[in-house]
Amino acid sequence: MEKYYISYNQIHTIMKNLSCEIRESGFEPDYIVAIGTGGFIPARMIKTFINRPILTVGIAYYDLNDNIMDTPHIIQWIDEPQVKLEGKKILLVDEVDDSRATIGYCLEKLLTHNPQEIAVTVVHNKKKEKRGSIPPEIKKYFAGETMDDKWICYPWDADDICEHDINCKY
Amino acid sequence: MEKYYISYNQIHTIMKNLSCEIRESGFEPDYIVAIGTGGFIPARMIKTFINRPILTVGIAYYDLNDNIMDTPHIIQWIDEPQVKLEGKKILLVDEVDDSRATIGYCLEKLLTHNPQEIAVTVVHNKKKEKRGSIPPEIKKYFAGETMDDKWICYPWDADDICEHDINCKY
Repeated sequence: MEKYYISYNQIHTIMKNLSCEIRESGFEPDYIVAIGTGGFIPARMIKTFINRPILTVGIAYYDLNDNIMDTPHIIQWIDEPQVKLEGKKILLVDEVDDSRATIGYCLEKLLTHNPQEIAVTVVHNKKKEKRGSIPPEIKKYFAGETMDDKWICYPWDADDICEHDINCKY
Repeated sequence: MEKYYISYNQIHTIMKNLSCEIRESGFEPDYIVAIGTGGFIPARMIKTFINRPILTVGIAYYDLNDNIMDTPHIIQWIDEPQVKLEGKKILLVDEVDDSRATIGYCLEKLLTHNPQEIAVTVVHNKKKEKRGSIPPEIKKYFAGETMDDKWICYPWDADDICEHDINCKY
């Protein structure tokens, strides 16, 4: 599969532009919820432009040996007594909407907290058949780049970041 | 105060080198715990080199209007029934050891979970008088750069990331 390299600075600029788009849509979140670990870096970038507390949720479909598991394993969730999401507006952030399985799973689970509204934002949305789905309650979806199904090489996964940047197109 | 600019790529390389140092010390964490929100990006970078699940804790000494508060406000903590830290080795990650207040607070609170060992790692440690302290139980501390008390400009706080990078020294 064709590889697509993207740098930290490119993602930073995408998150800045997405933040503008989110603000212009009239959506004002109470909380940013980052899906770990892919959403951590994009979510922290967004926080500079939309200054709201970040909560994180950790979901893994892979074990430590990179074997795929049938059911997702929850690494961390939101502690209800500590934070009440009921009636709140949530901006859910992940790096990529690939099969949509993780995002769909998180949305279903977040909806059980009875938030007022959830908007989804991702750096990349891949144009491909999706295994997961976005529940009908979710009306706002923001993608930085909509692209064909390539192998996206994120900077945080790079062993040598200088070599990685040489492979970035623009 | 003098400003010190640092790029994403510089931090990525620092975290790679720190990961080597941590491995060479013989410390093998079960969990990475990122202090939010400054530790999110460094922690995710470390995960590429030390592949362990990331848990996050959110602590705020500032309210949304950037007013300092007397007591820290917990935004998120670790849900005990979900994750047992008892007997585990934890690598605690933050971006900067400034006054040591946040790190000291998190260490005290993490110790109540009865972990086997906690090691601390930060991108920067400032040589200055510390208000907080590192409990005597903590024997391992890794800093990417030890520096004078400057105003560190992290890339994730940049409005214009290209302009930011021009200000980075090397």
